[in-house]
Amino acid sequence: MIRGIQQSLLGSILADMLLVLGCALFFGGLVHRQKEQRFSKVAAHMTSALSLMAFMGILFPSVLQFTHTQMHTLKSELALSRISSCIILIGYGSFLFFQIKSKPILYISVDEAKDNGEEDSDEEEPREITQWEAIGWVAILTCWMSVLSAYLGDRIQEVSDSMNMQVGYISVILIPSVRNASEHASAVMFAMKDKLDLTLGVAIGSSTQISMFVIPFFAVAGWIVGKPMDLNFHVFETTILLTTVLVVAFMLQDGKSNCFKGFILILCYLIIAASFFVHSK
Amino acid sequence: MIRGIQQSLLGSILADMLLVLGCALFFGGLVHRQKEQRFSKVAAHMTSALSLMAFMGILFPSVLQFTHTQMHTLKSELALSRISSCIILIGYGSFLFFQIKSKPILYISVDEAKDNGEEDSDEEEPREITQWEAIGWVAILTCWMSVLSAYLGDRIQEVSDSMNMQVGYISVILIPSVRNASEHASAVMFAMKDKLDLTLGVAIGSSTQISMFVIPFFAVAGWIVGKPMDLNFHVFETTILLTTVLVVAFMLQDGKSNCFKGFILILCYLIIAASFFVHSK
Amino acid sequence: MIRGIQQSLLGSILADMLLVLGCALFFGGLVHRQKEQRFSKVAAHMTSALSLMAFMGILFPSVLQFTHTQMHTLKSELALSRISSCIILIGYGSFLFFQIKSKPILYISVDEAKDNGEEDSDEEEPREITQWEAIGWVAILTCWMSVLSAYLGDRIQEVSDSMNMQVGYISVILIPSVRNASEHASAVMFAMKDKLDLTLGVAIGSSTQISMFVIPFFAVAGWIVGKPMDLNFHVFETTILLTTVLVVAFMLQDGKSNCFKGFILILCYLIIAASFFVHSK
Repeated sequence: MIRGIQQSLLGSILADMLLVLGCALFFGGLVHRQKEQRFSKVAAHMTSALSLMAFMGILFPSVLQFTHTQMHTLKSELALSRISSCIILIGYGSFLFFQIKSKPILYISVDEAKDNGEEDSDEEEPREITQWEAIGWVAILTCWMSVLSAYLGDRIQEVSDSMNMQVGYISVILIPSVRNASEHASAVMFAMKDKLDLTLGVAIGSSTQISMFVIPFFAVAGWIVGKPMDLNFHVFETTILLTTVLVVAFMLQDGKSNCFKGFILILCYLIIAASFFVHSK
Repeated sequence: MIRGIQQSLLGSILADMLLVLGCALFFGGLVHRQKEQRFSKVAAHMTSALSLMAFMGILFPSVLQFTHTQMHTLKSELALSRISSCIILIGYGSFLFFQIKSKPILYISVDEAKDNGEEDSDEEEPREITQWEAIGWVAILTCWMSVLSAYLGDRIQEVSDSMNMQVGYISVILIPSVRNASEHASAVMFAMKDKLDLTLGVAIGSSTQISMFVIPFFAVAGWIVGKPMDLNFHVFETTILLTTVLVVAFMLQDGKSNCFKGFILILCYLIIAASFFVHSK
Repeated sequence: MIRGIQQSLLGSILADMLLVLGCALFFGGLVHRQKEQRFSKVAAHMTSALSLMAFMGILFPSVLQFTHTQMHTLKSELALSRISSCIILIGYGSFLFFQIKSKPILYISVDEAKDNGEEDSDEEEPREITQWEAIGWVAILTCWMSVLSAYLGDRIQEVSDSMNMQVGYISVILIPSVRNASEHASAVMFAMKDKLDLTLGVAIGSSTQISMFVIPFFAVAGWIVGKPMDLNFHVFETTILLTTVLVVAFMLQDGKSNCFKGFILILCYLIIAASFFVHSK
């Protein structure tokens, strides 16, 4: 069951970072074909670095187990997972604190981009969605999803038995791509209104929340109730996560978007979906 | 023989991304020592992301085989390779479509750079080589190379037997570094004329074409004639490819070039050449 | 003993890149809370690329050993390590040569940033520390550290026996975090004076010096005196090094700093420290 929860959370991260973001950039780029859509580079770099940090916590237990160099097989892995989880939770807490305290720094580059941008001069229309509404949206959507994550974790095995499919494929690909429908809709909607920073807030923000809050929270909660929930996602899943983080980081690093980038992200998701279809565990 | 074709294609990618690009940046930087050479950041980021996507298709079969978690050993790997190949081919097709349709977006940053650049003011001379001539060059050169790739694939084993060397070393290092001579010459020539965008078009464009068109095309062609051509390049080769993609992506991300960057790329190629010399398979 | 030296050097790289840099950015960001600290993007990109190149030399022997595909087990690995070391040393030499010859190119982007920056207008105060003083500082500090590295290599085993701890943990985490105290102090001091380029010079410069000079130098020196010092750092250490290089590269790529970035780097170091605590070899 622990493996099922892990796969479900992994699937959510993949769906958010590739499918939801990809669709949003694709449809946003289609609607705004004649100009370049821009978003905050700083926020994109920040979330890339945060994703990599959260990825570290997942990577090291897998590598230790794979190279058989941990001191006491299961105990060490679990201890490492729990300590890493606490550190990642501290990182997430400080991220929230930093976002509230120093928002001007985080969002300064958007204004710079506006000042420097030559085709942005006619964009001074009043923003229809305020910063706080956006944060509210993201909070509500992601809370809902977290609840569903926990709920669905229990149902996966039943579904897997009744259908003739691998548990892994259902947990990682099928369920998240359906469950994230609401985020999907809002991310695409924001992108079509040329509010790419909100799109990133929904798509990347939600994947960051899972990797930096939900996953470590499960590990710590498991620690409290005495269940061996660790961060060892196994080598194949970890490799996929690393590639995803890198692809998204390279896609977002220049703060510009077009429909082709979105299309590539969707194709990457399809390759990953195909990989999980032939993955046995 | 399939392994020989794979190694030959891998070698072409490595030679294009490191040796050809490295020499071009090095000699270009030597000639234009007193100023900074610039190229389109957007195109560089785009090709980095495309390379990573194509890399995904190669990575996952290797990891599945390495962790022994695929469902049916060879069948799964082959199925995944074929599906991934189709997806990558779709990605390549959409890339060509996007390049033709929305060229202004892709090349906008070059103009921006020109407007912002302080030492570029005297560069307003009429361009001697037009966009279409350049695309023509790249197309002709890369077609010629693809034909040679197929032709040489057959000859490698014979050469390997007559000389006292590893097949891998000949396929991956010796042949590609000779075969890519024409690209080499044109890439260096463009760089010395300070047309770095054309250099990137030849060097990176050709490696992108191999990883996104030639390799998946072989896999699909093998599918049609019933040969088990897969994308599993084994762990060592895959690791080298990942490192290469990352090094080149970091080198190109700021849109500037100098002779030192070129020199470092050449040294990276030498390290990889040394690695293949002691690699047994 | 060779393993002890390797671990000690690895620990120095990790401490420099994550702990020293993290603390410097954190305290620098705290002192200069109301504005964004900037540093030379070009230098940051350059050192990221150099780190990746040096990492290549360390990665390939590990992968060859791990996949059991080298030709003659230990001999090949050693030969590859020695050749790679020579290539990396050439790269380091050319880096020093390039830095002296073409300093204007390397530091041009700082001036650009100053010209473009809107809040930097009041920063035209005379610099208290000249370029040469800074280079002197860095040279003295890193020489001192290199000497200590060699000296401490001998003492680690004794310390490990007397205390009840893994050798690896002492070598990689405890000693470097104490030994690097002087760099630590100067890096933090520079950051608090808003001289982030000097901070990077101390922290990243020193880690680059270890990975591109000290480590290959040991391998070459071992070659001369006939000792089998290779670059094979094993898979777990290599993975940690790759993740560290990537996290730091993503953190530094936009040339801006704030205290949150520093905090995240410190947390990454804590995760790595926890990993080495449960790592047995």
